[in-house]
Amino acid sequence: MGYKIIPDIVVGRLPIYLRELVFLDDEGSKVTSSQELGGRLGISPTQIRKDLSYFGEFGKQGTGYDVRYLQGQLRRILKIETVWKVALVGFGDLGRALANYGGFVDRGFCITHVFDNDPQKIGLRAGNLEVMGVNRMAEVIGKNGIKVAIVAVPAGAAQQVAQALVDSGVGAILNYAPITLALPGHVHVQNIDPGVYLQQMTYYL
Amino acid sequence: MGYKIIPDIVVGRLPIYLRELVFLDDEGSKVTSSQELGGRLGISPTQIRKDLSYFGEFGKQGTGYDVRYLQGQLRRILKIETVWKVALVGFGDLGRALANYGGFVDRGFCITHVFDNDPQKIGLRAGNLEVMGVNRMAEVIGKNGIKVAIVAVPAGAAQQVAQALVDSGVGAILNYAPITLALPGHVHVQNIDPGVYLQQMTYYL
Repeated sequence: MGYKIIPDIVVGRLPIYLRELVFLDDEGSKVTSSQELGGRLGISPTQIRKDLSYFGEFGKQGTGYDVRYLQGQLRRILKIETVWKVALVGFGDLGRALANYGGFVDRGFCITHVFDNDPQKIGLRAGNLEVMGVNRMAEVIGKNGIKVAIVAVPAGAAQQVAQALVDSGVGAILNYAPITLALPGHVHVQNIDPGVYLQQMTYYL
Repeated sequence: MGYKIIPDIVVGRLPIYLRELVFLDDEGSKVTSSQELGGRLGISPTQIRKDLSYFGEFGKQGTGYDVRYLQGQLRRILKIETVWKVALVGFGDLGRALANYGGFVDRGFCITHVFDNDPQKIGLRAGNLEVMGVNRMAEVIGKNGIKVAIVAVPAGAAQQVAQALVDSGVGAILNYAPITLALPGHVHVQNIDPGVYLQQMTYYL
């Protein structure tokens, strides 16, 4: 078997499959099928089978997928069998909401450090964390081997913050600032800008 | 000229182009090129020219694009020359952050109504708005002709809320709840689930 190049769009659907498997598990389902998953997700069963086949044989013709087993396999593939430490930069309204959000740990992520550059925010409590100054960012991220970060600072500060994160060893950035970051090619970036998502819909209205 | 079907992925890039044109404008640039835009966005100049050519001729060979003119054209295409009224449902930490976010109006959107089902939140101030009970949602959305909504409620409540929004006339939903909504085909939905975005990156780490 040769090395298969897996399209990003296929990798991008795996977390959606995993999320639905968790719901099925919560509902008490032991077994599911590409038909059932497809129906719940608005994705064709053929597409789901093809996507999963990149990674192995997870179900049997006629008997479907074991919900817990497939969950475990997807967690392994997505490398979230353990919990990633996450640095959050920016403790404004959004940063506060993210720091208080309880939904990350089950998904494989735990915000372990929060940074801001505002002296009035440094020392504030974020859940059971304490907001630290950005001047400590490089040292703390390096020492803790943090690879994942969330940027929730204003657009004007985001590029500098992101570059500092990368210089400290971060390789994956979830960027909430409404700008396109210019970073080295090996860094993975996902952007969440609600303005962009809203504009993508009004075109069709 | 026949009717051209424009791929969703092309439409999806227009807000990114627009956002960058606004930055260029803020920096004082009068004219730009597909090379400059591409360099700033990490998108090939050929792709940018091809995307824009779906909608018309916006630049001249050798002289590039007029920054203000192209901005205006993109706003027209994306139907954000006027400001859309937006209903926000859910006034938890995230809803509060969204209600306080000052970045929507310049992008073509204004949160004009906020709803929650928690009696303790109804009547609270959200900027210069007042949180209303969800029992008033259908009436208020219908009366104000609101077509765009943001769902920021827990996963367990999101499907019911989204269906109620659609029943009231909403045709575009920005969904922050970590579930796949089941809605009629004519409704446009964009999903923002940070857990999904983070998992899409750890695969590559």
